[in-house]
Amino acid sequence: MTNPLRDTTMFERHADACAVVIFGASGDLTRRKLMPALYNLALGRYLTGSFAVVGVARRPKTNEQFREEMKEGVGKFSRRKPVDSAVWSDFEKGVSYVAGTFEDKATYEKLRAHLEQLDQERGTRKNRLFYLAVPPADFGTIARGLKEAGLVAPPPNGDRSAPWTRVVIEKPFGHDLASARALNATISKVFEEEQVFRIDHYLGKETVQNLLVFRFANSLFEPVWTREHVDHVQITVAEEIGVEGRGKFYEKTGVTRDIVENHLMQLLCLTAMEPPISLEADAVRDEKVKVLRSLRPIEHSLVTENVVRGQYGRGHVRAEEVPAYREEPDVAADSAVETYVAARVFVDNWRWGGVPFYVRAGKRMLRRVTEIALQFKKVPHSLFRPQDGGITPNVLSLRIQPDEGIAIRFISKEPGQATVLRDVAMDFRYGTAFGSNTPEAYERLLLDAIRGDATLFTRSDEVEHQWAFIDPVFDAWNAGAAPPPVYPSGSWGPEQADDLLARDGRRWRKP
Amino acid sequence: MTNPLRDTTMFERHADACAVVIFGASGDLTRRKLMPALYNLALGRYLTGSFAVVGVARRPKTNEQFREEMKEGVGKFSRRKPVDSAVWSDFEKGVSYVAGTFEDKATYEKLRAHLEQLDQERGTRKNRLFYLAVPPADFGTIARGLKEAGLVAPPPNGDRSAPWTRVVIEKPFGHDLASARALNATISKVFEEEQVFRIDHYLGKETVQNLLVFRFANSLFEPVWTREHVDHVQITVAEEIGVEGRGKFYEKTGVTRDIVENHLMQLLCLTAMEPPISLEADAVRDEKVKVLRSLRPIEHSLVTENVVRGQYGRGHVRAEEVPAYREEPDVAADSAVETYVAARVFVDNWRWGGVPFYVRAGKRMLRRVTEIALQFKKVPHSLFRPQDGGITPNVLSLRIQPDEGIAIRFISKEPGQATVLRDVAMDFRYGTAFGSNTPEAYERLLLDAIRGDATLFTRSDEVEHQWAFIDPVFDAWNAGAAPPPVYPSGSWGPEQADDLLARDGRRWRKP
Repeated sequence: MTNPLRDTTMFERHADACAVVIFGASGDLTRRKLMPALYNLALGRYLTGSFAVVGVARRPKTNEQFREEMKEGVGKFSRRKPVDSAVWSDFEKGVSYVAGTFEDKATYEKLRAHLEQLDQERGTRKNRLFYLAVPPADFGTIARGLKEAGLVAPPPNGDRSAPWTRVVIEKPFGHDLASARALNATISKVFEEEQVFRIDHYLGKETVQNLLVFRFANSLFEPVWTREHVDHVQITVAEEIGVEGRGKFYEKTGVTRDIVENHLMQLLCLTAMEPPISLEADAVRDEKVKVLRSLRPIEHSLVTENVVRGQYGRGHVRAEEVPAYREEPDVAADSAVETYVAARVFVDNWRWGGVPFYVRAGKRMLRRVTEIALQFKKVPHSLFRPQDGGITPNVLSLRIQPDEGIAIRFISKEPGQATVLRDVAMDFRYGTAFGSNTPEAYERLLLDAIRGDATLFTRSDEVEHQWAFIDPVFDAWNAGAAPPPVYPSGSWGPEQADDLLARDGRRWRKP
Repeated sequence: MTNPLRDTTMFERHADACAVVIFGASGDLTRRKLMPALYNLALGRYLTGSFAVVGVARRPKTNEQFREEMKEGVGKFSRRKPVDSAVWSDFEKGVSYVAGTFEDKATYEKLRAHLEQLDQERGTRKNRLFYLAVPPADFGTIARGLKEAGLVAPPPNGDRSAPWTRVVIEKPFGHDLASARALNATISKVFEEEQVFRIDHYLGKETVQNLLVFRFANSLFEPVWTREHVDHVQITVAEEIGVEGRGKFYEKTGVTRDIVENHLMQLLCLTAMEPPISLEADAVRDEKVKVLRSLRPIEHSLVTENVVRGQYGRGHVRAEEVPAYREEPDVAADSAVETYVAARVFVDNWRWGGVPFYVRAGKRMLRRVTEIALQFKKVPHSLFRPQDGGITPNVLSLRIQPDEGIAIRFISKEPGQATVLRDVAMDFRYGTAFGSNTPEAYERLLLDAIRGDATLFTRSDEVEHQWAFIDPVFDAWNAGAAPPPVYPSGSWGPEQADDLLARDGRRWRKP
């Protein structure tokens, strides 16, 4: 299995011949993300001619209708506009549609006949990527249907000429440890783990990928990336938006399941992990799992001390008045669902012993920002006086969005007769350095899946370790009588979150 | 003695009441640098009302004439224009002139009477700063004259009410170890070392002062500022200009005496030194002396291997054709004076063992730049492939001029499907962060001298250690028959300098 993180030539990044089968082809994801991503891959000449996309959904539809819908979606949501008609017309020749319900055996029979025909006509070589853009409840049904129709080949075991079958599944990967295990068990009845690609689009973001490069292609930072030099780490995933009409979904989810269990814990893993022995998928994922296994469990009795939740009340975001969470459509008037969570987490291993990782995620925050910040210790001995302006500790921050970049805050002398110390920043902006021609996360991840590289996908044991860590928090919350404290929309969360750090003599960044 | 590096309030940076006596008041330095600096200190309200400036020179001149000349100089050379007439007219009330030759006893008698009158009229409290803006040959004469006239008070030994006498001397501090020792001996017959302020205007530059802040007010960099992490250090002092009509001076000097022995070695000391126990003048200078004492001597036989000199030939600087050094006015047609020198220097101590410091200084270089660059070691193990773009080592560079700033070059991932590694820069620009209201080096240094802070001045043992290190190089050059190789103007020096690093598998930066 070649590794795209090691690839540089266009040739090596070419996809295999294959058919991508999208279950749930009528949904928003297909129109907004998947098809624009595939089109952009075609535009970038990353796909071979022996390529096909098959949409599967319940509604009857002709190939032409489906193509028309997809073209409209690409025109609207592709990052490169307008649609290149030559590229599109070539691309759409490989786009087709199969109607049927997921419960119906006939659907899979029809699909099989169709895929065999594509193998003949387009040379897709029996390579199949099944993309399950459907609710998790349907995963088992579809997997069984595929298996029974003989559409799942065994892993090729290194035989490059043997056809391959892979499945991409979207989060949520369960809603707690038990359901995640059940889901993994269901999937694993049909697919081997190496055939399963659990997609977390955060990991497809350039800045997240760049985290590996930043840490392991540079010699300057890794020596100080340790407990000896780092005072604490802050990871923030802040959104300005509220639930945006998805109240029904959010009432079952909350920010902990929506953001923390997956995105945020993955960021924590990439920040804290040891250098892997290589960039092969399992080498990287082994290191991430080691971090997850090093997390100090937040037992029931420790939740109050280490975790703070909150729910947004009314307030102002960008000067606009916004309603409280409980006033959102489809949200219960007495909802206890959390829209904000902050936690103090320890990675109990040799590198990070005693270094708190303060993590937080929330909706209706003052600003939309995702960042990882390492705050370094104070200088061991200050040669300067407090009245010189104070020596604030150095901070290294990796902004993931928006305005991706890396910055170091350090102390400099203000020009002038006196020694006045000032906190200033050394800055690197991704956009300024490279322009804005950045692939969407889905482009990267789809191509990786087509090429069989699972580095940026979540392995089953990662998912289970993540839930195992999170579960006791829900237990404690469910046992407690008090609802989450309300914080005003457009703030940085409830004051209890400030207390969490204040008790340790620290403060949240206002990034 | 208070320390200005520790001061922050305007009040603390106020000067003592005193008279500044400039010997050589008709010279360029007075008009271009000293008087504009004093005027700017007045403008910034750093001077007390009990302040006077006395010019001493041979030519007869009235106070009014001298003031007029000085006003013209300030108008032309002050960094802040136009001259503020209210500030100037207040300032010039304290400006006066004493005519006389330095050999004549009567000059000093006249000066004494004049200073006593100023003590009465302006309240200068017998505090005197003698600024010797004259050739070194005159230092002894003037010092003796001052002493014999009773104008040198003993050091006040901590008695803050006792009057003080200080002397500022300009480089060159000798032209070799013997002459530097002789000069120090001459001076020390009249002044105690703590009364002597040897000025190297480089040390008054903001970025040089900031080097101490950068290193010792930040915890992020000092841990990697060692042999474990630094591959080598490069210090460059490159000028675009040639000898600019100063051929006569340069024929006796050369770049090694003009730049290396003082500026460049001071930059090396500040880069390599250990954290001082405080920022008191002697604490800092003790650490610098330790660096100088750690320098591995370049014995006669080692000069060829470790030092390269050069002399500029014809060429182009900024697209303009320029003559060879030997074609400059007052330069011998067969001159062997070096206008470029590069050396490989080792600081044989625990921190820097085995780390080469490559230093170079030259005229008629491609670009004017002064910088200190630390190149870090390669990553211990590369996870990436050579074809991914290669991992160039990290570089931390401190630009002293022009465009003062600090930059870190590091490796980032280029956005896109493939992992393409790119060398990019995180940047901090002094001007952007703070605007351009930066005091001139002379302002800082004059105020320091008036306040009795010698941190940024060179101590006699520093000077002697510097010469002791340099002397064998001249011995070897003088013994050798071959003249310095010629390099084209507008280049980075002779190819022998490239070989110097190439032998170690390294390359000069092209900053």
